[in-house]
Amino acid sequence: MAYRAGRHFLQIPGPTNVPDRILRAMDLPTIDHRGPKFQTMSKRILAGLGTIFKTEHPVIIFPASGTGAWEAALVNTLSPGDKVLMYETGHFATLWKRLAERLGLVPEFLPGDWRTGADAAAIGERLAADKGHEIKAVCVVHNETSTGCVTDVAAVRRALDAAGHPALLMADTISSLASIDYRHDEWGVDVTVAGSQKGLMLPPGLSFNAVSPKALEAAKSAGLTKSYWSWAEMLAPNRNGFFPYTPATNLLYGLAEAIDMLNAEGLDNVFARHQRHGEATRRAVRAWGLEVLCRQQGEYSGSLTAVLMPDGVSADQLRKVVLESFDMSLGSGLGKLADKVFRIGHLGDFNDLSLAGTLSGVEMGLARAGVPHHSGGVQEAIDFLTNEALPAQGREAAE
Amino acid sequence: MAYRAGRHFLQIPGPTNVPDRILRAMDLPTIDHRGPKFQTMSKRILAGLGTIFKTEHPVIIFPASGTGAWEAALVNTLSPGDKVLMYETGHFATLWKRLAERLGLVPEFLPGDWRTGADAAAIGERLAADKGHEIKAVCVVHNETSTGCVTDVAAVRRALDAAGHPALLMADTISSLASIDYRHDEWGVDVTVAGSQKGLMLPPGLSFNAVSPKALEAAKSAGLTKSYWSWAEMLAPNRNGFFPYTPATNLLYGLAEAIDMLNAEGLDNVFARHQRHGEATRRAVRAWGLEVLCRQQGEYSGSLTAVLMPDGVSADQLRKVVLESFDMSLGSGLGKLADKVFRIGHLGDFNDLSLAGTLSGVEMGLARAGVPHHSGGVQEAIDFLTNEALPAQGREAAE
Amino acid sequence: MAYRAGRHFLQIPGPTNVPDRILRAMDLPTIDHRGPKFQTMSKRILAGLGTIFKTEHPVIIFPASGTGAWEAALVNTLSPGDKVLMYETGHFATLWKRLAERLGLVPEFLPGDWRTGADAAAIGERLAADKGHEIKAVCVVHNETSTGCVTDVAAVRRALDAAGHPALLMADTISSLASIDYRHDEWGVDVTVAGSQKGLMLPPGLSFNAVSPKALEAAKSAGLTKSYWSWAEMLAPNRNGFFPYTPATNLLYGLAEAIDMLNAEGLDNVFARHQRHGEATRRAVRAWGLEVLCRQQGEYSGSLTAVLMPDGVSADQLRKVVLESFDMSLGSGLGKLADKVFRIGHLGDFNDLSLAGTLSGVEMGLARAGVPHHSGGVQEAIDFLTNEALPAQGREAAE
Amino acid sequence: MAYRAGRHFLQIPGPTNVPDRILRAMDLPTIDHRGPKFQTMSKRILAGLGTIFKTEHPVIIFPASGTGAWEAALVNTLSPGDKVLMYETGHFATLWKRLAERLGLVPEFLPGDWRTGADAAAIGERLAADKGHEIKAVCVVHNETSTGCVTDVAAVRRALDAAGHPALLMADTISSLASIDYRHDEWGVDVTVAGSQKGLMLPPGLSFNAVSPKALEAAKSAGLTKSYWSWAEMLAPNRNGFFPYTPATNLLYGLAEAIDMLNAEGLDNVFARHQRHGEATRRAVRAWGLEVLCRQQGEYSGSLTAVLMPDGVSADQLRKVVLESFDMSLGSGLGKLADKVFRIGHLGDFNDLSLAGTLSGVEMGLARAGVPHHSGGVQEAIDFLTNEALPAQGREAAE
Repeated sequence: MAYRAGRHFLQIPGPTNVPDRILRAMDLPTIDHRGPKFQTMSKRILAGLGTIFKTEHPVIIFPASGTGAWEAALVNTLSPGDKVLMYETGHFATLWKRLAERLGLVPEFLPGDWRTGADAAAIGERLAADKGHEIKAVCVVHNETSTGCVTDVAAVRRALDAAGHPALLMADTISSLASIDYRHDEWGVDVTVAGSQKGLMLPPGLSFNAVSPKALEAAKSAGLTKSYWSWAEMLAPNRNGFFPYTPATNLLYGLAEAIDMLNAEGLDNVFARHQRHGEATRRAVRAWGLEVLCRQQGEYSGSLTAVLMPDGVSADQLRKVVLESFDMSLGSGLGKLADKVFRIGHLGDFNDLSLAGTLSGVEMGLARAGVPHHSGGVQEAIDFLTNEALPAQGREAAE
Repeated sequence: MAYRAGRHFLQIPGPTNVPDRILRAMDLPTIDHRGPKFQTMSKRILAGLGTIFKTEHPVIIFPASGTGAWEAALVNTLSPGDKVLMYETGHFATLWKRLAERLGLVPEFLPGDWRTGADAAAIGERLAADKGHEIKAVCVVHNETSTGCVTDVAAVRRALDAAGHPALLMADTISSLASIDYRHDEWGVDVTVAGSQKGLMLPPGLSFNAVSPKALEAAKSAGLTKSYWSWAEMLAPNRNGFFPYTPATNLLYGLAEAIDMLNAEGLDNVFARHQRHGEATRRAVRAWGLEVLCRQQGEYSGSLTAVLMPDGVSADQLRKVVLESFDMSLGSGLGKLADKVFRIGHLGDFNDLSLAGTLSGVEMGLARAGVPHHSGGVQEAIDFLTNEALPAQGREAAE
Repeated sequence: MAYRAGRHFLQIPGPTNVPDRILRAMDLPTIDHRGPKFQTMSKRILAGLGTIFKTEHPVIIFPASGTGAWEAALVNTLSPGDKVLMYETGHFATLWKRLAERLGLVPEFLPGDWRTGADAAAIGERLAADKGHEIKAVCVVHNETSTGCVTDVAAVRRALDAAGHPALLMADTISSLASIDYRHDEWGVDVTVAGSQKGLMLPPGLSFNAVSPKALEAAKSAGLTKSYWSWAEMLAPNRNGFFPYTPATNLLYGLAEAIDMLNAEGLDNVFARHQRHGEATRRAVRAWGLEVLCRQQGEYSGSLTAVLMPDGVSADQLRKVVLESFDMSLGSGLGKLADKVFRIGHLGDFNDLSLAGTLSGVEMGLARAGVPHHSGGVQEAIDFLTNEALPAQGREAAE
Repeated sequence: MAYRAGRHFLQIPGPTNVPDRILRAMDLPTIDHRGPKFQTMSKRILAGLGTIFKTEHPVIIFPASGTGAWEAALVNTLSPGDKVLMYETGHFATLWKRLAERLGLVPEFLPGDWRTGADAAAIGERLAADKGHEIKAVCVVHNETSTGCVTDVAAVRRALDAAGHPALLMADTISSLASIDYRHDEWGVDVTVAGSQKGLMLPPGLSFNAVSPKALEAAKSAGLTKSYWSWAEMLAPNRNGFFPYTPATNLLYGLAEAIDMLNAEGLDNVFARHQRHGEATRRAVRAWGLEVLCRQQGEYSGSLTAVLMPDGVSADQLRKVVLESFDMSLGSGLGKLADKVFRIGHLGDFNDLSLAGTLSGVEMGLARAGVPHHSGGVQEAIDFLTNEALPAQGREAAE
């Protein structure tokens, strides 16, 4: 295997660069998950997650990938044959839809072109037409990781309310939580799905459901089979800081640290930092003469930027050159975007200089791979970063 | 929180003491799970697991606790309403049965007294009576973590064969894999269920299904719903070293290291070491005048020893004294054994001196908690350890 | 190289078992040693060391082993040809004397039999005879690491005072600091020499001089050449939290953590814990029918116990058997005690169960190596540990 | 203390960014430095260092900073009053001269303007004039860390030879070893001084003397006092892999890893990488309209670039802005260059994208601090990096 000097740039849109503090927090002996020390930590985490999801209601932690939390959201609230309204924002929305089908649900998929967030107005129209309230849930992806387009979840909530429709609202925040402004309670989301390996800055292996009282009510009569994913099984022991089966203890150590770090920076500062990096990246992309995939202002993602290649030019070839020449991993195009876009992750534990390094790697890669482009993208980005006010810095708790 | 000098003794029967080498292997930056470096590691792990399970067939890795792997074993092979023959070896067998019920299966539970392994003869009789082959699977727990009794899985296999019964054979090896001799292929097991946090010496967060060709065949027509747990979804990308959803990358780093360590020691040496520690522990228990829960010679566990308290004496009070006075976690009695037994874990990355410290903590705890007993248990154990030949040592691969 | 399961027992009298918290604290990126973050940490450390040495005067940190701090103590205060009174407590006192000779000093070595601490009365007599005050310094080893005998430093101070002698008093606390009660200011010590790798629970690589105002005054006219060890060069930048040359930054991270841990436990609790373990060890030794090298009650060390072998029995052979059979490192006999004693380290981050494991390793080793002895030493130790009140536990600072 | 997201850029010219692999290698329990496991490691290190210094003669490791290795080089080879010829390449050469004075040597300091390496011709002239061979040693700094100018050590050797002068040749390679081509044996250097915290990618705390047979011969009659630094004391136990006093064990773990990493990359690739980054940096500096301090082509450093500020503009103010705005540490001007230059470290474990991030931080800092300059330096650098052939990559040893 080739030896590479220096630090690898992991600029896929997640997993993100795990900070040393979190890796080190995880690098401690596993403890008894039924003992008092675990209990203390666990209560602190369960309380702390509320601040991140902006909810006063329970947040459930699964020792599982984000995909598991999608499944959990559905099996806890729905019954076989239930209709679910989903929106085709991109690859991950499509995967979630397929998952619903496998579980025996009947998803209706509002079509999208993979270049915008979900259209709240279209959702509202469909709901208004559903006089019989056959649709039991509306599922949207807050930040579509395959496209870098953000859905206005608050607008979707308003659409449900305007239609007077009782469906549950579910949102996938896997690549937006702790990166892009998100408010579980205020926006009236019933189930928020999230994972550990993006804005939370952890390795993969934990996923989450934040659940509203309405979702908990629905869970009482939901008919889909479940065991591992059962909220009811979780909530009872969680009240005392315990879990129904062995939790992923060392990832929880990291989670406790991540919550402290996000609070130290301040969530609003975190969001501003991600917006800043998104804007700098888009300016670079345009200076290169390339097109940002997301075409709707206001829906640009602070987490990642998907970039369209010129017609007939392979994105994967560019990614290969960048990896081999500059030791940076970029995200590939997924599903129907395969080989047509590449994705720059700029989320998680990240700063201006790492972004400049990232964009330099792209610009150098474009040249080396022979992709038609203008140089000067990095310059645009650093000009923007220089002149834009720096995001406010957080403060560590006094020692 | 109280400050404790020195190293905590984690002597529950899992999670076990994670070796520094494994913690450190996990304490490295997460990498792109779709890149070539991940692929190389992943292929090495998937091949290496075969050596541990003793199988030439696929081993599937879930980013989940062991409970998830129980669920996966069932949903991939069975259909709603299927009959499953299970054996009440203890608390975990009971939980697996409940899980089967939740999934819509119809478990039949052969009764046991929680002090022996599963009775192969009883299983054989029941199967022989099932002329119509309504029973689709036989599920046993190899090492019942709540009791420290081992089931003779090879004998169960022989019972199926003698009855000419086509049911699948499933075995839970969560607390026996890489601790007690186990042979997936040779014993004709169809699905082996395992977890990361015991003999594999990892933190919790990974679990496993080793699957026979017959199990894979059954999977084609299995009617239970599944998505996260789907073998088919896993096997296709696994062939190239990839996963259908984000894997728990850093736990995989640890798994690669664990496989190397087990191979360096040699699995037979690992098993001999666990037997040695089980025997030393039982000698100590008897010297204290206490009773080993497992009452069947030949079924004693090398992973853990459950100890019956004298009538009317609280096991949990003893455990509390031991934790507070000597900073050691012991396993509690589970289910109907609650407060009646305590469990000493002696599995995983463990050696003679740590066992001596462990048994000393128990003996001192018995005295401090006022439990009627004889002293001299530690002395019995160290006499045994002194005179018994040491297990052969492994060798690191030459550098 | 042989593969060994379980944790190695490092029971030499230093380096000691480094706690995970300290290893992890050191496992963070090196920072700019001239920047504000370093400065903050460094000021906190320099202040915190005063609590450990019990001094209000400066403590100087060298990026060096303890041997360097011996040299520093002498070259900063003395001139070529100066007379120094030293006491032959054992091997390390002898090495310090040799070092003094190499530096051009004229040590006078009061003879000892390597089985007691320094005799304050003998020192007092010699000083009283030194009417011309030719002796410029009295150097004693607080805890002689080669013998496990403690010198009553306060008594030595009283002897100097009684003789009205102006010599500087220097004490080597390399294996006693943060393990055995020590008071730099109260006992009127002028230079205290210490190292990182024993009671401070760090890896080796840092050493210390705590210096009195009188020592600083002497430094102004001291004629021995010095550069690296110069206190004056250190003290000026230290006032602002900086160092005259690159400090061992990552070891300083560990030192900051160690100070926090010692304060959390409470120094008096630390001392009581070490005394407890010393007493338990001596009881085991006597039960084995072996002799503790230190023969003076009141001078027994809480850090280590040196054990005399029966005549003609090789200590090194025993140590070899213990290492190979039970993966424990014991200290060897040094100098004239080579092969005649072995030393059990019970200092640093250590607790009752690890001590029980340690003593079990010795007892099993004695048997395996064929050393004539009685069994039952471990039993004596655990009886003592059971019945003796536990040392008070410390508290972590509230989070 | 302010919370900063993302990774700090440590771009001082050492300590350098310690790779995770090395930090993790150090994050393991300290072992017995007199035991067989230590011995094996230590022998491997002592042999491996020869490859890095390019010598077949001994390399001595001190648990000390680089300053200690300067002192060791002098005290082992020289006697009080000996004349030493030194060359004023900058701040560190000046400090070494002061150290020589403190030790009682008589340095003669050939003047330099801190903008070039040492002038071999001037040294040759001075030696030729020294008919009586009063000069006992010639000391030069290979890469002057305060200026970024490299001395042609081979030329200095030739100058000695041409003058037929028997003086010892000593070279400080603290910021060049394992970064800039250096050959102890081939260039006839007698003592090479080095430290752990630069090209060797370790935290500070170890330093080195590579010693020629001629230096060892000189050591036999050298009259300066020494103990800690004594080569003779080191060499005897080193032959068996041991040390005369406690070594800095955990830093040695890191050193073993560093040697493996440098061999995996290949030293020639390491040197080419540093040259590449030096050239890219100088192009950026010139594009900004600023002046590189080193004014002699062929003497430019691959380790660092010192940049002259425009007249009257504070370098320290720029460094403060860069640290506060972009979380990057740059090196300050030292001695007479204080506040007039800043230094960019581009040595150690470093790659193109981190360099691009570094230069972006400088360019953005220049703008934010209001330093007159042209933008476009980063663009120049990435254009160069794009078009210049990539350095060959090394290979890890097969697993």
